[in-house]
Amino acid sequence: MSLTMYQASIPVFVRMLGNLSNILNKAIAHAEATQIDQAILINTRLAADMYPLSRQVQIATDMVKGCAARLAGIDVPSYEDNESTFTELQARIAKTVVFLQSISKEQINGSEKREITLKIRGNEMVFLGQSYLFNFVIPNFYFHITTTYAILRHNGVELGKMDYMGEPQTLDIKIL
Amino acid sequence: MSLTMYQASIPVFVRMLGNLSNILNKAIAHAEATQIDQAILINTRLAADMYPLSRQVQIATDMVKGCAARLAGIDVPSYEDNESTFTELQARIAKTVVFLQSISKEQINGSEKREITLKIRGNEMVFLGQSYLFNFVIPNFYFHITTTYAILRHNGVELGKMDYMGEPQTLDIKIL
Repeated sequence: MSLTMYQASIPVFVRMLGNLSNILNKAIAHAEATQIDQAILINTRLAADMYPLSRQVQIATDMVKGCAARLAGIDVPSYEDNESTFTELQARIAKTVVFLQSISKEQINGSEKREITLKIRGNEMVFLGQSYLFNFVIPNFYFHITTTYAILRHNGVELGKMDYMGEPQTLDIKIL
Repeated sequence: MSLTMYQASIPVFVRMLGNLSNILNKAIAHAEATQIDQAILINTRLAADMYPLSRQVQIATDMVKGCAARLAGIDVPSYEDNESTFTELQARIAKTVVFLQSISKEQINGSEKREITLKIRGNEMVFLGQSYLFNFVIPNFYFHITTTYAILRHNGVELGKMDYMGEPQTLDIKIL
């Protein structure tokens, strides 16, 4: 079977959100072990004019809920963007996964040329579905997950690349 | 036309390598303006046990030259991994773009189920082409570009998200 818009989006997003959730679990464990207030990690930035960890997680989830809804041609779920604890960020990730899993292959497939209108920096931009997925959503999604990881690594949380990638055992591959 | 393995890989990689090259150009300009030795930026890490900037650029390019070659079923070009200046890193990016552009749609398309064997942490793993692209190459590629960006942002280089994303004017979109 040849590649589809669904395969290029929903299962990949669900897998990476699982990895992001595991990364946050390690941050929680680190905060408990080192007696650091979780709020410090949540409000940490890599530069004064970059977003803090909480906003990185919010945008990562925004990207994929927006993508799934727009490619499917349904309303984008609205979140309040008021998460201030790891528990709340985990709940946001979990509800995003539930939303992604509610979208069927039939809703997403064939959306390569669907017109997607976004307002970015004051301009309305009309993407076609495939370019929206590959040139806007995917680079943004990985940017914000990687930046979350980078904030935590820079602050001493014991994470490795496999936490970001996910265990290969969970993929459809053979390990010899 | 429906999504293809070629569209999901080569043009996306070429575009992002152009953005990475622009990011390095801003790092060079920053080093010149602030009289910082370029080697300091090139050897900077976000954590003592993370790779420095030079290695981030090396791995980002490794990911996509490996991907293009393996999906096409040809030998992976071998690089010496000896870049120690921005000029050399830019040359590595440029030769990777030339290699990517030498691969035709016909070589990549239909590789969804091609078996790709990688040696990772001592284990041989056999991916199918589509899973290799979406669950291994793409997450790694964006990880190392984002980490390059993050190292530079953390060290005061004036970069914004649009440097990472690339100008929308270069995409096939309408701006209203």
